Amino acid sequence: MAVEGQTKEQKERSAVVKRARQSQWPAIPMDEALKAIETLARKFQPESKCFPVAALQPGRVLAEQIFAPEDVPRTRTSIKDGYAVIASDGAGKREVIGFSTAGGPSNQTLKPGQCIRVSTGGVIPAGADAVVQVEDTELLKDDGENELVIKILKAPSVSQDIREKGSDVKLGSLLLDVGCEMGSAEIGLLNAFGIQHVEIYRKPRVCVLSTGNELVEPYMPQVPLGHIRDSNRSQLLALFRGQNFKAIDAGIALDKVETLEYAISVASQFASVIVTSGGVSMGEKDHLKEVLQDRLNLKIQFGRVWMKPGLPCTVAHGSIADREVVVFALPGNPVSSWVCAHLFVSPLLRFSAGLSRLHATKIRVKAAEEIKLSPRPEYCRAWIDMEKGGDLPVATLTGNQISSRLMSLVGAQVLLILPQKGQISDGSKIKEKIEAGEILDAIVVGPI
Amino acid sequence: MAVEGQTKEQKERSAVVKRARQSQWPAIPMDEALKAIETLARKFQPESKCFPVAALQPGRVLAEQIFAPEDVPRTRTSIKDGYAVIASDGAGKREVIGFSTAGGPSNQTLKPGQCIRVSTGGVIPAGADAVVQVEDTELLKDDGENELVIKILKAPSVSQDIREKGSDVKLGSLLLDVGCEMGSAEIGLLNAFGIQHVEIYRKPRVCVLSTGNELVEPYMPQVPLGHIRDSNRSQLLALFRGQNFKAIDAGIALDKVETLEYAISVASQFASVIVTSGGVSMGEKDHLKEVLQDRLNLKIQFGRVWMKPGLPCTVAHGSIADREVVVFALPGNPVSSWVCAHLFVSPLLRFSAGLSRLHATKIRVKAAEEIKLSPRPEYCRAWIDMEKGGDLPVATLTGNQISSRLMSLVGAQVLLILPQKGQISDGSKIKEKIEAGEILDAIVVGPI
Repeated sequence: MAVEGQTKEQKERSAVVKRARQSQWPAIPMDEALKAIETLARKFQPESKCFPVAALQPGRVLAEQIFAPEDVPRTRTSIKDGYAVIASDGAGKREVIGFSTAGGPSNQTLKPGQCIRVSTGGVIPAGADAVVQVEDTELLKDDGENELVIKILKAPSVSQDIREKGSDVKLGSLLLDVGCEMGSAEIGLLNAFGIQHVEIYRKPRVCVLSTGNELVEPYMPQVPLGHIRDSNRSQLLALFRGQNFKAIDAGIALDKVETLEYAISVASQFASVIVTSGGVSMGEKDHLKEVLQDRLNLKIQFGRVWMKPGLPCTVAHGSIADREVVVFALPGNPVSSWVCAHLFVSPLLRFSAGLSRLHATKIRVKAAEEIKLSPRPEYCRAWIDMEKGGDLPVATLTGNQISSRLMSLVGAQVLLILPQKGQISDGSKIKEKIEAGEILDAIVVGPI
Repeated sequence: MAVEGQTKEQKERSAVVKRARQSQWPAIPMDEALKAIETLARKFQPESKCFPVAALQPGRVLAEQIFAPEDVPRTRTSIKDGYAVIASDGAGKREVIGFSTAGGPSNQTLKPGQCIRVSTGGVIPAGADAVVQVEDTELLKDDGENELVIKILKAPSVSQDIREKGSDVKLGSLLLDVGCEMGSAEIGLLNAFGIQHVEIYRKPRVCVLSTGNELVEPYMPQVPLGHIRDSNRSQLLALFRGQNFKAIDAGIALDKVETLEYAISVASQFASVIVTSGGVSMGEKDHLKEVLQDRLNLKIQFGRVWMKPGLPCTVAHGSIADREVVVFALPGNPVSSWVCAHLFVSPLLRFSAGLSRLHATKIRVKAAEEIKLSPRPEYCRAWIDMEKGGDLPVATLTGNQISSRLMSLVGAQVLLILPQKGQISDGSKIKEKIEAGEILDAIVVGPI
């Protein structure tokens, strides 16, 4: 058969005959895959920039240590609304010689038998060594406008209701550390000290590319037979954006080696982390591993992982046009790509964001029902109920866990970590299932 | 004494003589305060608007039920890369008559002894009733380009590796419900069905006002004696923004009744929820309750709550210039205002955002150390450690819990709910403290 006589489609199909009928990639265990990710992560050190505190939003990550530029409080202040007194005067009458409010300090000096009215946060006047709250006093004499004499009902003790200078924060003490995630309290703290600018980490950028001849844009009015709308891209973009990363839409690439090579090369100009979905399994159109390895000359760190859902999950690392990149080639099934994004991509991005903690939080939960174990370790999507009996949250599977079933992700709050069948054995018996009520580790992936 | 002869300052101080020396407001119990908030919340029903799915970001809340506009999959598709076969043909040889890839369906009909190559997601051709994965086949004959004859190694069963039409989602079934918070999975799902627009709830708006003569803007280069920088405002703005609400900066108001009245009136034009801090305690400059009740004619729902930190927390409701408003007048201490914002303001805003769950998540934790109980129920800030022994997270207090100490909020992940001293008694003994290792409820307030 003359090669000249072949149509383009025929040429492509010719590869089918030569394809491997078993995957050439060993399925590595999860802990090995995660270790590879951690090693890779260290190559993508976070970058920092100077940022105005006035524009800081929750979720940014601090890239410097912040030390207190002054004592808090700066002077002795009152904890209560009441009277600054000399403690050794005891209970009884006091002449009121003035007032010291927050924002209106007194410059008088207290002598025995005298007191000065103070409000919460007001500066303690010279000579005073205690505050008596207004509730513990009586007004004895006034001139119709001002208090002249009051009675202290209970003898005060020295330092009572006084915030000493530097008692909350000492000048020079560490306020916030590198890697600290800015929340409302941290932003308030920076403002309390009048800090105007801080060094924060840049948000890591990640490019999201969908691959597949069968994909159409979700806004297309008609979807031809055999085609589906591309939901992976919007899903992954939202996933990364929800985690405070900068996610860039790289579109859809057709299943052709040249197209894939070009699309990934373009993506590498926008981000050093590239996430694709589809094209990594055993299908005749699954060219991604070949493209990554042979055309882009990246080193495939792993080409399969012994887990579910996401067996063909692939990670490659290297340089494209002198830019260091990592490509996460996730499986095309929407559930697999979502789970693998959480397990593999997010930890690397978290590191690159400057967060001190690489992995998502794990909690312990109780299985609501019996769950059959799979030959591979499995990450099942589950809802949790905090109120349902006992001290631990109760986890219920989000229905059928088949990897095409996008509905199994809806509202999912955790990924239950299930061991593979038979992995845990008690003596002679092989473990086939998780019993209802059994305690499991779970990775938090949604609002709990 | 002629009133004409008084300076303005003297006139103001004249009120000091007449001030109550005990709070006139009963300190209501927490459950009563929360019930009042829930009743109020129902007056601030969420509003919805039509929104393009392409612009949806995580955190928005759905205001309509979404039903599946089609079956998923729309036709029978393959779960694996392999061959569509007739199951009753059993194991053995098959003639390969064509191919059906995702995006390239076949229009051939299978006859006994024949098979059609399929890829994952590819349409199952007419006549076929099972898929055999490529790993379970051998190539027997080819013409150098195309597969001609293969061998099925293991007899397939009917329906094997076929996703039936509608097996993931049935046409017309409920996909997402009202009040559902949009996450990556939900956004992906809408795109998978080609849904272009959804009705979502508007983000509730909240105006944040600081009050106090002692306050200066955080960007001021000098802070005069007796003054402090206003950190409450940036803190509360960040707190509400971090929870996906629209928070508006209403500035600082001085402690004068006219100023406070004006500032709150202006704020009411921008938002129906107004949050102030400061001016609600027993200080001579604490005019807020008077302003809310007597000048703005709002009804004070409660003027003190029997809890800590935040005893003088005040909530008022009514109309300003025909706009229904609720004013949360929080205490001025940064810790009290932060805790009260979480406990009282956020639930009302969550309701107004359309979220089905009013209150933040509670988890159960183990106390890392002994904690002394206060006469009031207390909400202590704590860090949690998920790894530290046992199934429950271990909670450690964030240092000294005094309400002025902003540092006690840094990194706080939960509010430990402590009962008041003596509230729980076992027989004759009064409970004075929480023992190390005791299990407590905790409200989640930060990333865990």
